[in-house]
Amino acid sequence: MNAASPQHSRNAKPRAVAIVGATGAVGVEIIKCLEDRKFPVQSLRLLASARSAGKTLPFRGQPVVIEALTAESFKGVDIALFSAGSGISKEFAPHAVKAGAVVVDNSSAFRMNKDIPLVVPEINAQLLADRPSIIANPNCVAIIACVPLWPIHKHNRIRRIIAASYQAASGAGAAAMAELRDSTQAYLEGREYKPKVLPHPYAFNLFSHNASVDPVTGYNGEELKFMEETRKIFGDQQIAMTITAVRVPVLRAHAIALTIECEKTITPAETRALLVGAEGVKLVDDQANNYFPMPLDASGQGDVLTGRIRQDLSDPTGKTISLFVAGDQLLKGAALNAVQIAERLL
Amino acid sequence: MNAASPQHSRNAKPRAVAIVGATGAVGVEIIKCLEDRKFPVQSLRLLASARSAGKTLPFRGQPVVIEALTAESFKGVDIALFSAGSGISKEFAPHAVKAGAVVVDNSSAFRMNKDIPLVVPEINAQLLADRPSIIANPNCVAIIACVPLWPIHKHNRIRRIIAASYQAASGAGAAAMAELRDSTQAYLEGREYKPKVLPHPYAFNLFSHNASVDPVTGYNGEELKFMEETRKIFGDQQIAMTITAVRVPVLRAHAIALTIECEKTITPAETRALLVGAEGVKLVDDQANNYFPMPLDASGQGDVLTGRIRQDLSDPTGKTISLFVAGDQLLKGAALNAVQIAERLL
Repeated sequence: MNAASPQHSRNAKPRAVAIVGATGAVGVEIIKCLEDRKFPVQSLRLLASARSAGKTLPFRGQPVVIEALTAESFKGVDIALFSAGSGISKEFAPHAVKAGAVVVDNSSAFRMNKDIPLVVPEINAQLLADRPSIIANPNCVAIIACVPLWPIHKHNRIRRIIAASYQAASGAGAAAMAELRDSTQAYLEGREYKPKVLPHPYAFNLFSHNASVDPVTGYNGEELKFMEETRKIFGDQQIAMTITAVRVPVLRAHAIALTIECEKTITPAETRALLVGAEGVKLVDDQANNYFPMPLDASGQGDVLTGRIRQDLSDPTGKTISLFVAGDQLLKGAALNAVQIAERLL
Repeated sequence: MNAASPQHSRNAKPRAVAIVGATGAVGVEIIKCLEDRKFPVQSLRLLASARSAGKTLPFRGQPVVIEALTAESFKGVDIALFSAGSGISKEFAPHAVKAGAVVVDNSSAFRMNKDIPLVVPEINAQLLADRPSIIANPNCVAIIACVPLWPIHKHNRIRRIIAASYQAASGAGAAAMAELRDSTQAYLEGREYKPKVLPHPYAFNLFSHNASVDPVTGYNGEELKFMEETRKIFGDQQIAMTITAVRVPVLRAHAIALTIECEKTITPAETRALLVGAEGVKLVDDQANNYFPMPLDASGQGDVLTGRIRQDLSDPTGKTISLFVAGDQLLKGAALNAVQIAERLL
């Protein structure tokens, strides 16, 4: 089912909206989502660093002047969508809340705070009924995995997840996307290119995710986020989990190979039946034509493409399913999920 | 330990060597391996399709004229290295054997034939003692996974492998490598590019491996090869296995995320101790600097880079380890392994 259908009433009262980090890769997509989904915007405030102040970005055909973010930026704002990193969120979200705004935060700042809901609307929109002042938007890999796994988990509890990710440049921001393009161009021309944004050469190369590695567990920060956030989103602290997070030379959609062990036996046919028509999921599972989820197809769309559904041959008990998913990191993995949360707040 | 050290005596009798598929991506690397490793070549016969006949390729600074492959091509040949696809191997390997040559076959033609050894020299070189007339060179992903897993398996039997691959263009041949470069150049210039070699767009994209999908299991041919060949190489039919094989926009080295469950408990420290100095393995596991195996570093070298070694958090029994490996698909995954087999035959 197309998750991209706006979830707000056409008669919703227009709101004053602010975007913090409006010039970033996610910020730009938030503006587009508000436009595309006809979000009832009464006024739009674009906030960014002083460096961008005075420039404009278009919204509904009109230029909107970017303002420098300050503690006073949220006066009169109803909904503030933050996407400028964890430090900015920690510093400025309290100011937004104090000014009376509801904050939807795309950073990791508040995700694991037990008093703040971590929301994927297809899964736990009911947490918004308590009118929280801050709502955290999950990590992109967690969102993209959780959307197709939730219908399975609801029906037949998932007790173990083994994942390997194929993560796009966009997760590291617009500068990383530019670095992938520029370094690839240089490679093709035989020119040297010194990485500026990511720690390793990116042209026709891949590397373990650049988040720092926890010396105790050996998992990197991205992997730990995926595991703890998925448990919080599902409201199930007992799910056993592992993931290997890898940055691949793809521009803006993540893919994930998932092996999931359920509590009871499960077949590919049952899995497909659970996923056909599931909110936010699009089945792309054409074995005869070898057509499965690809980042190229996922880019620009709100649904998580899901396929390669098969009985996992490594579990003779018949409780394990393997699948492969792809979702737009900037949309469902970030901007779209945040705007969907805002829609449910209306 | 550097697997690239030649395993032949400096006094070995020079042999008449033929390469079938000499102009392919692997064929060219075989020629280089024979040169680099000072293989005792008395004469070199380069065999290819009639299309390439009459052209030359250099060997030790001299041009060698390419001949069209025929049933008569193997007269006087001691060792024939085949790398021209399964059909060619099935048709012409018997002619080579009849002419008295030993065949090292890089295709899938004979790999699962119970009378033909499937050899990774670091693991089962002892099978060469019987002087087989045909030796099969395994699938590239199987070789690259098996080299670092073998020292673990020998010490603490691996009973389950869960893998996700990140496979380079080279596995689909030189034309696929050219398609990755050309389509990426077209993308960067905003030009259309219609895929000619692979079934899906490759520029900044990835897709499930293009081998056809078995309608019964839902696994594709590449995945089934990995599983059955790994069992044959390890001589252990009971290892439970699953893999998701994915083609990524990388030129010539494969990476694999591996989750392995052993029979007894195992720690990362024990795993590292087993792998330090293991033949064909190079530990690249620098957590502090986030430096782990990458295709770029694996390209052009014979060892399988191995790192991200950590206790798998999804198995509370402490029997499971996760790791990430990268190996040159054209070298250890194909040409080098074949030449290493030939060296052991001397």
